[in-house]
Amino acid sequence: MAAVLRGSRYLGGKCCKHVDFAFVSTRYMASKTSVGFVGLGNMGNPMAKNLLKHGYPVIATDVFPESCKEVQELGAQIVDNPAEVADKTDRIITMLPSSPNVIDVYTGPNGILKKVKKGSLLIDSSTIDPAVSKEMAAAAEKMGAVFMDAPVSGGVGAASSGKLTFMVGGAEEEFTAAKELLTCMGANVVYCGQVGTGQAAKICNNMLLAIGMIGTSETMNLGVRLGLDPKLLAKILNMSSGRCWSSDTYNPVPGVMEGVPSGNNYQGGFGTQLMAKDLGLAQNTATSTKTPVPLGSLAHQIYRMMCARGYANKDFSSVFQFLREEEEGQ
Amino acid sequence: MAAVLRGSRYLGGKCCKHVDFAFVSTRYMASKTSVGFVGLGNMGNPMAKNLLKHGYPVIATDVFPESCKEVQELGAQIVDNPAEVADKTDRIITMLPSSPNVIDVYTGPNGILKKVKKGSLLIDSSTIDPAVSKEMAAAAEKMGAVFMDAPVSGGVGAASSGKLTFMVGGAEEEFTAAKELLTCMGANVVYCGQVGTGQAAKICNNMLLAIGMIGTSETMNLGVRLGLDPKLLAKILNMSSGRCWSSDTYNPVPGVMEGVPSGNNYQGGFGTQLMAKDLGLAQNTATSTKTPVPLGSLAHQIYRMMCARGYANKDFSSVFQFLREEEEGQ
Amino acid sequence: MAAVLRGSRYLGGKCCKHVDFAFVSTRYMASKTSVGFVGLGNMGNPMAKNLLKHGYPVIATDVFPESCKEVQELGAQIVDNPAEVADKTDRIITMLPSSPNVIDVYTGPNGILKKVKKGSLLIDSSTIDPAVSKEMAAAAEKMGAVFMDAPVSGGVGAASSGKLTFMVGGAEEEFTAAKELLTCMGANVVYCGQVGTGQAAKICNNMLLAIGMIGTSETMNLGVRLGLDPKLLAKILNMSSGRCWSSDTYNPVPGVMEGVPSGNNYQGGFGTQLMAKDLGLAQNTATSTKTPVPLGSLAHQIYRMMCARGYANKDFSSVFQFLREEEEGQ
Amino acid sequence: MAAVLRGSRYLGGKCCKHVDFAFVSTRYMASKTSVGFVGLGNMGNPMAKNLLKHGYPVIATDVFPESCKEVQELGAQIVDNPAEVADKTDRIITMLPSSPNVIDVYTGPNGILKKVKKGSLLIDSSTIDPAVSKEMAAAAEKMGAVFMDAPVSGGVGAASSGKLTFMVGGAEEEFTAAKELLTCMGANVVYCGQVGTGQAAKICNNMLLAIGMIGTSETMNLGVRLGLDPKLLAKILNMSSGRCWSSDTYNPVPGVMEGVPSGNNYQGGFGTQLMAKDLGLAQNTATSTKTPVPLGSLAHQIYRMMCARGYANKDFSSVFQFLREEEEGQ
Repeated sequence: MAAVLRGSRYLGGKCCKHVDFAFVSTRYMASKTSVGFVGLGNMGNPMAKNLLKHGYPVIATDVFPESCKEVQELGAQIVDNPAEVADKTDRIITMLPSSPNVIDVYTGPNGILKKVKKGSLLIDSSTIDPAVSKEMAAAAEKMGAVFMDAPVSGGVGAASSGKLTFMVGGAEEEFTAAKELLTCMGANVVYCGQVGTGQAAKICNNMLLAIGMIGTSETMNLGVRLGLDPKLLAKILNMSSGRCWSSDTYNPVPGVMEGVPSGNNYQGGFGTQLMAKDLGLAQNTATSTKTPVPLGSLAHQIYRMMCARGYANKDFSSVFQFLREEEEGQ
Repeated sequence: MAAVLRGSRYLGGKCCKHVDFAFVSTRYMASKTSVGFVGLGNMGNPMAKNLLKHGYPVIATDVFPESCKEVQELGAQIVDNPAEVADKTDRIITMLPSSPNVIDVYTGPNGILKKVKKGSLLIDSSTIDPAVSKEMAAAAEKMGAVFMDAPVSGGVGAASSGKLTFMVGGAEEEFTAAKELLTCMGANVVYCGQVGTGQAAKICNNMLLAIGMIGTSETMNLGVRLGLDPKLLAKILNMSSGRCWSSDTYNPVPGVMEGVPSGNNYQGGFGTQLMAKDLGLAQNTATSTKTPVPLGSLAHQIYRMMCARGYANKDFSSVFQFLREEEEGQ
Repeated sequence: MAAVLRGSRYLGGKCCKHVDFAFVSTRYMASKTSVGFVGLGNMGNPMAKNLLKHGYPVIATDVFPESCKEVQELGAQIVDNPAEVADKTDRIITMLPSSPNVIDVYTGPNGILKKVKKGSLLIDSSTIDPAVSKEMAAAAEKMGAVFMDAPVSGGVGAASSGKLTFMVGGAEEEFTAAKELLTCMGANVVYCGQVGTGQAAKICNNMLLAIGMIGTSETMNLGVRLGLDPKLLAKILNMSSGRCWSSDTYNPVPGVMEGVPSGNNYQGGFGTQLMAKDLGLAQNTATSTKTPVPLGSLAHQIYRMMCARGYANKDFSSVFQFLREEEEGQ
Repeated sequence: MAAVLRGSRYLGGKCCKHVDFAFVSTRYMASKTSVGFVGLGNMGNPMAKNLLKHGYPVIATDVFPESCKEVQELGAQIVDNPAEVADKTDRIITMLPSSPNVIDVYTGPNGILKKVKKGSLLIDSSTIDPAVSKEMAAAAEKMGAVFMDAPVSGGVGAASSGKLTFMVGGAEEEFTAAKELLTCMGANVVYCGQVGTGQAAKICNNMLLAIGMIGTSETMNLGVRLGLDPKLLAKILNMSSGRCWSSDTYNPVPGVMEGVPSGNNYQGGFGTQLMAKDLGLAQNTATSTKTPVPLGSLAHQIYRMMCARGYANKDFSSVFQFLREEEEGQ
């Protein structure tokens, strides 16, 4: 029992990635009730693994059977579809690419809500339109279940190391229950308000991020053309009011910083087409709430143009490269 | 002599605003050679006072005689025009509203270059087009004088308390001489490179600042409409990749922060029309260097629209108010 | 004969000249089968009247009973809801404010599809997201009915005078049947392609219209400030490559043209908030098809900002006024 | 004399390109006084030829001697520099790439104003900043000469066939004298107002043209993705309020129209970098007059991005290609 407590304390810490799997005894696992997981893609896979590491029996499914292999080998039970997951457990996490997938997984013919138990806790970590989150919450409520939106920030690396940030929307009284699970997969779990506000926070952050990144790229490019050394310019911006995350932590100009995609030909990181998708969501919510977002909207268009010009799979900081004059003869 | 050195060391510190004027003895003042100052406006006035406080005899002029009164009472010698300033001293600081004023003060019929002494150090702290700085430098060089551009960041408050940041462009071997004077008026004096790079750094910073401010305003407005509490949203952004100076230090949403213009109906601070002017400079340099600056350009247009709609004299963070829906019946 | 004259006066509209009234005998009217009409707002009302004028018995409904009065007095049969309309006739036209209304009127609990007859022709003249048109078409097809989208261009005036332009999407073999009805209400009926292309054409036109209008306003404002007479500038543009509908037919500058909203303080015409709605649809379709529309997107934002600043109900050409500097002291 | 008048009438017509050169007798040529021409580039060359064809003795110069060959063979007298042109004739036309060239040609060490005769008529057909036109006019006036700005619309083809449009700014009483010469080279000669308004009209037209072209490209691209046939969409736009010169006369979508650059891989026509230059001028004048031009400004940035991505020498309608998704795997 002491071991369990110790393990439990230990596991709650940030270094959960070092968890020795052998150490997590069967007895310990048995003491936790199962968790469902739908969507074992690049992000869902390491997230589900972290749940397993923390001793939760996992019941999982994915439309692509091969995606289930890894977690199955680690002990997860694989079932045919989301409805079966809901049939076997009353806490389910979903991690899906986009709104239509979420709608299908919850309300489709083999969807969670077809067999959901009363009182179930359904946590969706997909990044989708907050209006869809609200729809899902309303549909879940009709079945006596609770739906929360909990999109993440941090990429595959953070998912693997359990360092994601979760932004959670939904009934406040359910937050503690959600946090218990999300803490296994993330370093920060922030309560944002009613259903949909988790998505809202995620979308807002990424819109401002995109604006800051393009702005930093334009500014660095202009400064260099005006004769400034890029490292010096970055230093000046970072001690001044131009400072932002894109200038001081993820600078898009090759050579200014180490360990960021700009130093690695814009490989890895957060792809331009994923940013374009998030900006599309921001645009949709701005349109439906009649909110003017001129820079956010233009940022969306710029990432869309980049996708059209071959930058879809490069890190979103490659906008620096896109804007910079490269061709000869001009 | 020791006293002088001690005083000098003391004055170099950040608490120079507390300098007891009585303590700065006549003997001390006599030991420093005079400095010319052209342009005693809102910024130039407190800057010239700080030179006086640091014991420099000041020879000053301004097109508006009444602007000269205050520094005259503090001991400055007032002369008729820039040429006369140049006739009496070989170190001159200029602080003027815009490029045409600078051109006139240096190369006009009563301009500095009409009577400049060989070897003079001419420091222009105006914010102007870097191309004009280069022209002035070339014209000064023909007369055997040295011209440096040294625009400031920080407003009237920083000018009064001697806490400005100077971004300096020009011959590196003259930087020490320039720094001696600028340190009396500023907390940071940064060498940026060849002539014009001080302007470039200033312009770049302010362009990115404007982008960050409008982006933050759009984002906060969108988040609030999506149901997020503004303080919570600011907190989330500031711990995430959306973080920027406008979100964490100068938040544009009333009530999120204290001690910033958004808490005071956007009074004080940095006026929208001044930001529009700086963005115009950024636009001009971008155009002449053929650099694409899509967000910087749109930011310029937005501040221009705001000037047209009555926001010219409000702090530039009032873009939040401009974008927010206010009218009824919609 | 007296009846004919009375009828002629009544018809009043400009296209009545093509109706040979003597020919429209009672017998002839009786030979026409009834048409359903759902949505008797500013546009639907005159459209339904034109159907009546052309001898079609009309069976109509609207959520606001008072909207039904006028057409009832002219002989239309008023029923309780769309399902009842579908129960009584097999050709139905719908004219509704936005996508959710269309979804409700077709697929809601009292919706058309609840009682639609096999083989019915359902024509939706609302301006909505083409994706919703496609959904409605699929839902109708399941019930054995045919759905076509047929949004209009032209405002209340064109609706009254039967001069609307209809852009029609749907199965080509049904176009003739649709055209028979639409010709009663419009001067042009254009077949655009598969379901949703009517909406697409409408949305595309209005996006380009908005871009042209804002562009014309910027250009005219700039030209005037550069010393050009606005009438002369309009003339030069209109004989050159800057020519567009907004410059030559609907000039936004007061005094350049007669008979347009700019000459009447931007009253009447096509409201800014309606344009903002259409641009929102364009934005949504661009986002979902991943199409970059940088100017369309910025046009959307500008109309959105205008709505936030009190221009919601002014004609969309008032963007000239919005952009023009008005305040003093700048 | 009658012959001259007859010839003159004939030559004034639009078919001046058909003028039989042999027919223009020496006697006839002798009866006209000489005209100076500075700048024999792509545009200046055919313009000077048209002056020769109309019987004007031409005295020309260019910085590149080889540019002078063709007109020399046709009878023009070639001199060393603009000052010499001014020494030999009192009517001079200049056609130069950009503002700095104009400043040099007029006010440089070998500039026109060095030897200009009192009462000379100086006509600048370059497209430059109207502020520079005003400066040149002021400088000319000091020397007792008259300066007019007369930029052209129409490209090399129109220059060859004498079908240019001239937009003329300057003293109205000199317009007749200017028109006499310009009519030899253009089909339309429009008086715009005081000095600089010719440039203003040109710049305004091209800004609106760029907006219309990008807008048309976005719209056509969106429409095609929404399932519309491009020819049909163009037809619909052209009969509706979306109509503009770029949609009905110079459609950017390959296959929609014949005889335009979009049908020829965007070769020929008006190059993207020339459009970017004109938009830079528009931007500069908007900035200096504090005029908001949001779409014009974004259009500038888009053409600037295109130059950075390899489109500098393609026709400006290639923005359709730039915006269209081309790469695979997205």
